[in-house]
Amino acid sequence: MPTANAYAAPSATEPLVPTTIERRDTGPHDVLIEIKYAGICHSDIHTVRGDWGPQQYPLTPGHEIAGIVTGIGSEVTRHKIGDRVGVGCMVNSCGECTNCRKGEEQYCLAGMTGTYGAVDRDGTVTQGGYSTHVVVTEAFVVTIPDTLELDVAAPLLCAGITTYSPLRHWGAGPGKKVAIVGLGGLGHMAVQQAHAMGADVTVLSQSLKKMEDGLRLGADHYFATSDPTTFEQLAGTFDLIVNTVSAPIDISSYLQLLTLDGALVNVGAPAEPLPVNAFSLILGRRSFAGSMIGGIRETQEMLDFCAEHHLGAEIEVIPAAKINDAYERVLASDVRYRFVIDTSTMS
Amino acid sequence: MPTANAYAAPSATEPLVPTTIERRDTGPHDVLIEIKYAGICHSDIHTVRGDWGPQQYPLTPGHEIAGIVTGIGSEVTRHKIGDRVGVGCMVNSCGECTNCRKGEEQYCLAGMTGTYGAVDRDGTVTQGGYSTHVVVTEAFVVTIPDTLELDVAAPLLCAGITTYSPLRHWGAGPGKKVAIVGLGGLGHMAVQQAHAMGADVTVLSQSLKKMEDGLRLGADHYFATSDPTTFEQLAGTFDLIVNTVSAPIDISSYLQLLTLDGALVNVGAPAEPLPVNAFSLILGRRSFAGSMIGGIRETQEMLDFCAEHHLGAEIEVIPAAKINDAYERVLASDVRYRFVIDTSTMS
Repeated sequence: MPTANAYAAPSATEPLVPTTIERRDTGPHDVLIEIKYAGICHSDIHTVRGDWGPQQYPLTPGHEIAGIVTGIGSEVTRHKIGDRVGVGCMVNSCGECTNCRKGEEQYCLAGMTGTYGAVDRDGTVTQGGYSTHVVVTEAFVVTIPDTLELDVAAPLLCAGITTYSPLRHWGAGPGKKVAIVGLGGLGHMAVQQAHAMGADVTVLSQSLKKMEDGLRLGADHYFATSDPTTFEQLAGTFDLIVNTVSAPIDISSYLQLLTLDGALVNVGAPAEPLPVNAFSLILGRRSFAGSMIGGIRETQEMLDFCAEHHLGAEIEVIPAAKINDAYERVLASDVRYRFVIDTSTMS
Repeated sequence: MPTANAYAAPSATEPLVPTTIERRDTGPHDVLIEIKYAGICHSDIHTVRGDWGPQQYPLTPGHEIAGIVTGIGSEVTRHKIGDRVGVGCMVNSCGECTNCRKGEEQYCLAGMTGTYGAVDRDGTVTQGGYSTHVVVTEAFVVTIPDTLELDVAAPLLCAGITTYSPLRHWGAGPGKKVAIVGLGGLGHMAVQQAHAMGADVTVLSQSLKKMEDGLRLGADHYFATSDPTTFEQLAGTFDLIVNTVSAPIDISSYLQLLTLDGALVNVGAPAEPLPVNAFSLILGRRSFAGSMIGGIRETQEMLDFCAEHHLGAEIEVIPAAKINDAYERVLASDVRYRFVIDTSTMS
């Protein structure tokens, strides 16, 4: 089996360290990818630190992968050597359940296989993108359009699809008022996408600190949620609110900002249950909903959409040696808006 | 101003007593209705007892009204003397806001005028249907089809539309699996309607006590929620769950019963906030939503639908003197499934 350079967490409490990991041989339906860039997602930190349950260590995180195809299996038809490709949060699914057949592999009823820390079909534990190479079944490898730089594209594979999918599903577009809660890694993608879809876009952020960025990214309006008049002023305004903040927020207050039939969609999930006042739902036939990444077909659609509209993540490229520093800065919200690891620094 | 016999609560803590109330003169757009039957809704009890906030007393409740037109204003075109008509939970709205123009007067942005205990456009406090007569603007008076008995029709004006509207809005029909939580006044209507719409219907009730009724009313399946295996067995099953129980239930457990894109819709609202686990929403793009009665056009559609499918409330008709006893029995869930007051006993 081939080996790859990588960074891995030896345990939930230690910093990530350089290491070597094994990748499987390229099977008939597999694609061997030389990873060029890997985004750092907040969930990488939660996972390696065991916040979401115990893990098997050492663990290499990373599910925002952009690279070049350097090998293909005998049966591969979707990709060829030299292709610019991406891999997101999942590397497999059953392919047979109702949801997989709909192209919604992220909701696979047998459970999709996560890009890292998951038990793969062959019984091994998957290892993620903080690495120089990865082998993935072709059906879970998407094409990165030529006009998207690989470093800018990497975060789209998780952040970009996480926001694109609910915006599309709940019909963001001309004539629709869309609010994005939080202007971080996810929020800054959501603003660009909702704007490109033609919606009237409002950012709801704790403060006005990032207002200039928000407006530059495409927001039409920007409000501070720390200002209580915001909630009075915007009552009954939005058709759709996408909440990108995974810390608990007062859901009932945000529900009041929805118009008739409006939906508040969480794309993150705090560990503790969120109290919801049922009257906030009933008075206006409102919904509180959730959404998780997107299917493979939709991920490709999102990449094509971002390329067409010249959207991408705003990034800070770092060498692998800075991963642990970057983690601390992510936890301190000190990043605009996504760290991306240059994996050539792992050689 | 004409007077009408009525029953009213003198205060939040006293039983209802016979009285006389004033009704306004029949204006140009008004319809004078001789009330024949008035349903007793659980919310009547909450309201007169001040559970939902302070009221002006004496207060005559009742928003499930069926009767005969005995007078019309000079401009009235929708109804004529002798017509069989109904009045539900609202008697007016602004008529001009976005929601009113959509025919969703129940969500009037200026606030719809409730049938009782609300400040009417003329500044008086509205008095409800536990009475011999009522005067209502014609736009809020619906026609009861000839094939529906008036006593059976009365509860449709609140209970019937409260369940019909979300069933239609969320697409109950052939190929859809619909669960109804609770088999009471609302639930027993929901089961009949969802079945008539062609859905596969499951009742989720605390126990199997009313199972025979549920199956007779049209349920295909019946489960006890007190049995913990119910939740394992039905995981990921339903496209739509209509929750008719206004006491708090464990929303997150019920969300797990939904399929991809499924919705759990509350038509009642407990006073305290309901804890919702956001993971239950995100894993399956599920929604927790609310719905409140229905618009006037949809209320007429519901009456026509019930007439066409020979559906109606299962009722126990009582004389007015039994109202206070009936209240105690409603609170004890000792009614199958709706008390209806024969208002001729008020004369």
